[in-house]
Amino acid sequence: MPQRPLNVGIIGGGGGAFIVNPHQKAIFFDGTRRVSAAALMPDPAQAMEEAENWNYPIQGYPSYDEMLEEELKKPLGERIDYVLIVTPNFVHYDPAKKFLEAGIPVFCEKPLTITVEESQELAAIANSKNIPFCVAHTYLGHWTTRFARHIVKSGLLGDIRWADSSYIQGWLASRAEEAGVQQAEWRVDPKRAGASGCGGDIGTHAYMHLCFITGLEVEEVSAFLVNFVEGRALDDHFTTYCKLSNGGKAMIRASQISIGHKNDMGIEINGDKGSLIWEQENPEKLVILLKGQPERTYWRGDVEANDGFLGDLPEDLMSEPTIPSGHTEGFHDAFARLHRYFEVDVRSYLEGKYEKADGSKYAVVDDGVKALQFISAAVESNNNNNSWVKL
Amino acid sequence: MPQRPLNVGIIGGGGGAFIVNPHQKAIFFDGTRRVSAAALMPDPAQAMEEAENWNYPIQGYPSYDEMLEEELKKPLGERIDYVLIVTPNFVHYDPAKKFLEAGIPVFCEKPLTITVEESQELAAIANSKNIPFCVAHTYLGHWTTRFARHIVKSGLLGDIRWADSSYIQGWLASRAEEAGVQQAEWRVDPKRAGASGCGGDIGTHAYMHLCFITGLEVEEVSAFLVNFVEGRALDDHFTTYCKLSNGGKAMIRASQISIGHKNDMGIEINGDKGSLIWEQENPEKLVILLKGQPERTYWRGDVEANDGFLGDLPEDLMSEPTIPSGHTEGFHDAFARLHRYFEVDVRSYLEGKYEKADGSKYAVVDDGVKALQFISAAVESNNNNNSWVKL
Amino acid sequence: MPQRPLNVGIIGGGGGAFIVNPHQKAIFFDGTRRVSAAALMPDPAQAMEEAENWNYPIQGYPSYDEMLEEELKKPLGERIDYVLIVTPNFVHYDPAKKFLEAGIPVFCEKPLTITVEESQELAAIANSKNIPFCVAHTYLGHWTTRFARHIVKSGLLGDIRWADSSYIQGWLASRAEEAGVQQAEWRVDPKRAGASGCGGDIGTHAYMHLCFITGLEVEEVSAFLVNFVEGRALDDHFTTYCKLSNGGKAMIRASQISIGHKNDMGIEINGDKGSLIWEQENPEKLVILLKGQPERTYWRGDVEANDGFLGDLPEDLMSEPTIPSGHTEGFHDAFARLHRYFEVDVRSYLEGKYEKADGSKYAVVDDGVKALQFISAAVESNNNNNSWVKL
Amino acid sequence: MPQRPLNVGIIGGGGGAFIVNPHQKAIFFDGTRRVSAAALMPDPAQAMEEAENWNYPIQGYPSYDEMLEEELKKPLGERIDYVLIVTPNFVHYDPAKKFLEAGIPVFCEKPLTITVEESQELAAIANSKNIPFCVAHTYLGHWTTRFARHIVKSGLLGDIRWADSSYIQGWLASRAEEAGVQQAEWRVDPKRAGASGCGGDIGTHAYMHLCFITGLEVEEVSAFLVNFVEGRALDDHFTTYCKLSNGGKAMIRASQISIGHKNDMGIEINGDKGSLIWEQENPEKLVILLKGQPERTYWRGDVEANDGFLGDLPEDLMSEPTIPSGHTEGFHDAFARLHRYFEVDVRSYLEGKYEKADGSKYAVVDDGVKALQFISAAVESNNNNNSWVKL
Repeated sequence: MPQRPLNVGIIGGGGGAFIVNPHQKAIFFDGTRRVSAAALMPDPAQAMEEAENWNYPIQGYPSYDEMLEEELKKPLGERIDYVLIVTPNFVHYDPAKKFLEAGIPVFCEKPLTITVEESQELAAIANSKNIPFCVAHTYLGHWTTRFARHIVKSGLLGDIRWADSSYIQGWLASRAEEAGVQQAEWRVDPKRAGASGCGGDIGTHAYMHLCFITGLEVEEVSAFLVNFVEGRALDDHFTTYCKLSNGGKAMIRASQISIGHKNDMGIEINGDKGSLIWEQENPEKLVILLKGQPERTYWRGDVEANDGFLGDLPEDLMSEPTIPSGHTEGFHDAFARLHRYFEVDVRSYLEGKYEKADGSKYAVVDDGVKALQFISAAVESNNNNNSWVKL
Repeated sequence: MPQRPLNVGIIGGGGGAFIVNPHQKAIFFDGTRRVSAAALMPDPAQAMEEAENWNYPIQGYPSYDEMLEEELKKPLGERIDYVLIVTPNFVHYDPAKKFLEAGIPVFCEKPLTITVEESQELAAIANSKNIPFCVAHTYLGHWTTRFARHIVKSGLLGDIRWADSSYIQGWLASRAEEAGVQQAEWRVDPKRAGASGCGGDIGTHAYMHLCFITGLEVEEVSAFLVNFVEGRALDDHFTTYCKLSNGGKAMIRASQISIGHKNDMGIEINGDKGSLIWEQENPEKLVILLKGQPERTYWRGDVEANDGFLGDLPEDLMSEPTIPSGHTEGFHDAFARLHRYFEVDVRSYLEGKYEKADGSKYAVVDDGVKALQFISAAVESNNNNNSWVKL
Repeated sequence: MPQRPLNVGIIGGGGGAFIVNPHQKAIFFDGTRRVSAAALMPDPAQAMEEAENWNYPIQGYPSYDEMLEEELKKPLGERIDYVLIVTPNFVHYDPAKKFLEAGIPVFCEKPLTITVEESQELAAIANSKNIPFCVAHTYLGHWTTRFARHIVKSGLLGDIRWADSSYIQGWLASRAEEAGVQQAEWRVDPKRAGASGCGGDIGTHAYMHLCFITGLEVEEVSAFLVNFVEGRALDDHFTTYCKLSNGGKAMIRASQISIGHKNDMGIEINGDKGSLIWEQENPEKLVILLKGQPERTYWRGDVEANDGFLGDLPEDLMSEPTIPSGHTEGFHDAFARLHRYFEVDVRSYLEGKYEKADGSKYAVVDDGVKALQFISAAVESNNNNNSWVKL
Repeated sequence: MPQRPLNVGIIGGGGGAFIVNPHQKAIFFDGTRRVSAAALMPDPAQAMEEAENWNYPIQGYPSYDEMLEEELKKPLGERIDYVLIVTPNFVHYDPAKKFLEAGIPVFCEKPLTITVEESQELAAIANSKNIPFCVAHTYLGHWTTRFARHIVKSGLLGDIRWADSSYIQGWLASRAEEAGVQQAEWRVDPKRAGASGCGGDIGTHAYMHLCFITGLEVEEVSAFLVNFVEGRALDDHFTTYCKLSNGGKAMIRASQISIGHKNDMGIEINGDKGSLIWEQENPEKLVILLKGQPERTYWRGDVEANDGFLGDLPEDLMSEPTIPSGHTEGFHDAFARLHRYFEVDVRSYLEGKYEKADGSKYAVVDDGVKALQFISAAVESNNNNNSWVKL
């Protein structure tokens, strides 16, 4: 049965911000969601001007406060069904809180907020009111990420001993922020980005990937934060050595000064029976390495249950509507998968049937809190001569 | 200025066909196009039933004839702005002809038709009436394909001596058609697929890629077609040796029986100053090899003009709205680029300002004719002991 | 039990020739063979001068005739045990014939001779006198090549349908021969190189690899030879389409004008159950692709019998003394393996126990004849408008 | 002018030890060195028996003491010119000291000894007597390693900010030592291997590679050593975060429990102008990444000076006798290069002209000391809750 497309309101995204583009594509992707409203800029006049010049017709608002007020006046079906927050980090908390309090589901860019306390406050509201909340950890949306999670859970790798989760970039190797690169500017300002620059921006992705795939928690951390580029207030290089909840160990690390790396995020996991390797820039494959066996490369769209190694595979993994292997999925497909899963929860919510998401499809608000706690502990460790800090 | 989204009507695509999915995503991708109507199946009752169960609301029609008739009654803005044809090969000609004659732009799956004559007829109508017509050679939509075309044109590789354009698959290594795989069934039936199976289905992609990137024509061909799987009426393996319009030589080849290959399409071009290599399954990069130089790997989103090798780069190549490098584009992005370019031409057409597309953005109807001529010559050569046949 | 190192005499190799270097390393590699004598240059004075300036002490001779005469006067153990011929192609026949007639085993560079007749004559002598004879098809010496041969023989890939064996280089894309590059000069001269340039020089490697791994014969060939570089008398680009002895088909092809390719030799084989892929520039691995299975990459030194896919593995494959995987073998290791196998046969011969080699360890004289027949048929086909020619 | 081959005596290497094989090949490789004597086993009877069954004739000795005594009685030219020590770590010190005191050059496996003090004692003797001493850090022998060192020195990468040098293996993921694997047994015994297992065995390679290529020293270290396999006395996983002498930072790390990794050693270096990446298992290439430029891959044998990025290249780098690119060098080639360079120094020494090696061709005794100091500091840091320890 066809259903009316869900309406999405956007907060932020004006002024040439990059991240609003993949979100829009992901929203429209399936024909079942659309952008209907937006408060694009902090300045009301600019916000309205950009809305009027938007690529397709939307309802522009001078501020998210007005968007909230006006949209609530509309009947369900016409008003926004969920809100997407793509502002700089320090402007996540306020709109998220207000929309949650009004009962509107929130899809929020990461990191969730700039302090642990703010994130806990959002979690408290979302949980007590049972409202869907997604933190945009895009890379969880790759099919192979979900396949990796299944592999670990299935026991194929045995007990997890070691994981190395990393996100390496090079774009901040020089002072891009002084060259007026908008993306760069606020990311290196503690007031707008939070207590960690590189860690908060991309280290959180590496953290979330590790937790999502292994199902383990980081319990304690010893951290080394560096700002290699002179005059920069926040770290542009972030390395942590972690103790995991099962007794295993891990590194979670990130860099913004490694020239030549684009979005080189990857994870390797070593169990006592085997290993797996995944890379974001080549997201269609998962390499599985078992003792006494040749290397196995599995491709999205070309995985068959009971091939002698994989047993039965979960229905919701295999029925995932995708294109055949060899026709590559990419960043937009991962983004779309998050919005697609979130749509399911939002529709349940609208029907009064929503049960709290368990984090197996996308990062929920509690995951966002944990990521902040991780960053906070890392900053504290670094400030205390890399001593161990518990989360 | 926001513009109303264009309306697209779909012909075919019911019954679980694969190719309708990426087209839909590509249509919705940018928020400026949407699917509004469809005649999904040859059987009227099934067509209506599937439309009623479609994922999002569309106007269902029992047949494309009725779709044409009814849509034409609607005012511009409500009726379909272009039609997408995704039926099996033998059902391209009739709807394409009828919609063209009614002045509706056509976006048609490849190969254009099953005979040269039919394709020429479509070209005659489209050209005489000056109507936008796109043949869905998706792989032209990769940014790197367009970059490769620019590299050749810029002279960086010198005179083109040799090209090897191939498309290797393995999915028809066994009799998938007898196992009831719908995608397989009609592809191996001469009446529905045309005179060549493997050549028509994927050899045409290899042909089009070669012509698009090099700007050269195939003038003469010696061909070797094989059907390796017993009982199959059409070739599942297709190899041609070609003479090019500049005196160079080339191979254009395809296979459906190479187990382990998914959609392994690629091209290498050797000029007298350098070479380039491109691969569809890794579509974000282009490798350029110059004499006495290290290998250069260029990544979409990370190409800078005047790096000492590339001179100025065309505005329309560089301004292409895309995501930064390291966040991979894939199949859907390529599809979307074709529909995005086609949208521009359709809007011009609706405003009465359309000038015939030159084939630099997508394959036009004349390209579709040439591909049919190439296949036709290859079949003739093969039937005559691989002797040379002129196109 | 330690055995005295075998003595090897070299014919050719002076004047900075490249190929004599890897042969010397391969000879010394194991401590059980050494170079003891050499006739390094056609000019007697130069031959003696180079021998006196050789890196280590050798017995220099002004000509191979004198080497033969003088060495035969020495007692076994002091005289040469086998002769290595590394002269340009047209100087293989005469010394090979003379040494064979004197009962000395011959290790000869490829192609065996410049005409089929000459090669048949050598084969007749070697076979009638039962003397070990190795044609230096180095790439058969890679462990993975031998493993590939076993895989095909084991039936894992099913019936062989198609093979694509190629050797792509770029070093003759310009007129290197006119720039005084010694390696290039004689290779493009029909009198010194034979009837085919690119085909004879490296196409023969692609041919031999195909036959060695599949165990099949090429029965008929349609060939396309091109000389892209103006003023060159021999082909620098060589493409053949072949009919195989089991009804399968194949391409055997080579290029010397593909800028950026170094020694890019590779083979892919498609059977009705699976495929294998091997590449000379990455010779430590073999990729095996089976229907419904993930890609398997096997590494030399890390292959275990009965992993669920491979059954028992031949003793002489597994006992091969090598370094552990991850410590790469390369060109010299492959060369050494040929000389190591040849040593075994030469020692048997010296003890009067030699049984004719079956071509499973290295290319024997009969293989050299077949390669010449293949090249001869390809040249004839090309001269007759690419018509089919039987071998 | 030909020179008599140098004579090499081997200490250790019996009983199926792996490492003696590549050394022998490396010794014989060029025809200018040979193995003449050996004390193969600690047990005198076994030592003699193995020598009598050696592959080629050698002078066997029951012990290295007797080898020293007897060889010294022989005249120069007949006696050993240098000694190769391939015993387990705890049997490096004694023979090295004795042979040095007798004036015999020493080529010793790594790590140099099991304590810093022992290594310093060896260095004191070698330096005061000015005797050539090589520590077998094989991977310095790859041409690309030396090229990388040149690249850093040339300033192409700018100031070095960060380096990540790692050596990842999987062979000790289970208790191989209990399964009677000889290679494994002594490596996990503190008395025979030293204070660190994984760090001492392969972490030292990662350390040496970093120092050799960057020319920097490690000044301070915070270390995390783990033994993941139950019941094992020494670390099988080794991670350090380091402060470098130029203010930069680095990780030096190693693992023996990462299933699927063979000898996965690699280094990445990030400067403020660019990066370089090198991998031991693919040792023929060096990737160089410069800001605003495409990725550059340089191949051994295919590097040309003044390509627009590299300026003049050092004579001794470019004149290195090697095979053309595309014919791969491997482990044996790297080993051979060390022995080849050492041969030059030994010949100088024999002629009384030796000037102390500067560590630019191979790791000298002082490098061996530093590696021990690094391991010692890492162990101390780990024992003190990962606190910073100065070297």
